[in-house]
Amino acid sequence: MQLATLRPNGSPANRTVVFRGFLDTADDLTFVTDRRSNKISEIAFNPLCEVCWYFPESREQYRFSGKMTVVGEAHPSPELASARQRAWAKMSDAGRAQFTWPHPGQPRTDLDTPLSTTTPLAGEPAVEDFCLVVINVTEVDILQLGKNRRSEFVREEGADGSVLWKETEVNP
Amino acid sequence: MQLATLRPNGSPANRTVVFRGFLDTADDLTFVTDRRSNKISEIAFNPLCEVCWYFPESREQYRFSGKMTVVGEAHPSPELASARQRAWAKMSDAGRAQFTWPHPGQPRTDLDTPLSTTTPLAGEPAVEDFCLVVINVTEVDILQLGKNRRSEFVREEGADGSVLWKETEVNP
Repeated sequence: MQLATLRPNGSPANRTVVFRGFLDTADDLTFVTDRRSNKISEIAFNPLCEVCWYFPESREQYRFSGKMTVVGEAHPSPELASARQRAWAKMSDAGRAQFTWPHPGQPRTDLDTPLSTTTPLAGEPAVEDFCLVVINVTEVDILQLGKNRRSEFVREEGADGSVLWKETEVNP
Repeated sequence: MQLATLRPNGSPANRTVVFRGFLDTADDLTFVTDRRSNKISEIAFNPLCEVCWYFPESREQYRFSGKMTVVGEAHPSPELASARQRAWAKMSDAGRAQFTWPHPGQPRTDLDTPLSTTTPLAGEPAVEDFCLVVINVTEVDILQLGKNRRSEFVREEGADGSVLWKETEVNP
């Protein structure tokens, strides 16, 4: 899925991230990233984002807008720290090894040096640079190109903490 | 491809658009949109964007960042007005008919009323709401997941108006 954020210089940024499931049983989307990546400084500057996820076979587009929380090594919430460790354990060997690569986005001078020489194990604590990012979604826009239907959903929280999604059918 | 822009309220927006080719022989990307869509007010507020285009088969991601120009019915440049009319003529019947649909994003009260009753012809002048958007790309970030290679390209214009793309290989 594609994640749009805001750069500290005010310009939009956009890149592909891999959906890593919902947070527990909630509606929050998750993905993982490297603490050294630009995403992390962008989120610190402005936590708002919009995810665009297009499914070519069903010709459906989901737009999720919300606010991101970065869960790094020192996150104070035990629940989120545990979710981060579970996300780490679910990564493939190749996925975990990426977090030992040299600083992403920095100039690469030597193409002959391997990017990593070690693969941290799934059963070990997540490495320092491994971050889980949680998107608390507040609005969803679903477009179904095959049916020419489009709906907007806005999250509303009741006084008892329950979540309702208010739907409005709109012109495609 | 996915287009990230900035909403007037400062939050990022992200949606799928269809690439409509390069502008003439230049490096500028084009897409089309409806003058009534939110994109148009976002571009008027801030013309910066970043396009993310991921190719699942080759596992390559292209990120294009640049500045957008909207070419509507009254655009003063004869070259751009002509490019807009050519883009209109290349659209499918279904694509042209969309520009006669009711206001995109407004509440839809009646699902039984057809979205359009007319299909404007390719040979006729483009309808008023048809806009060509030109992205003048200034930076490109290419990530090749299969090869674990990543390069950044920055556009530089020589004194004679010639364009050079300065490449830097970076860590993926």
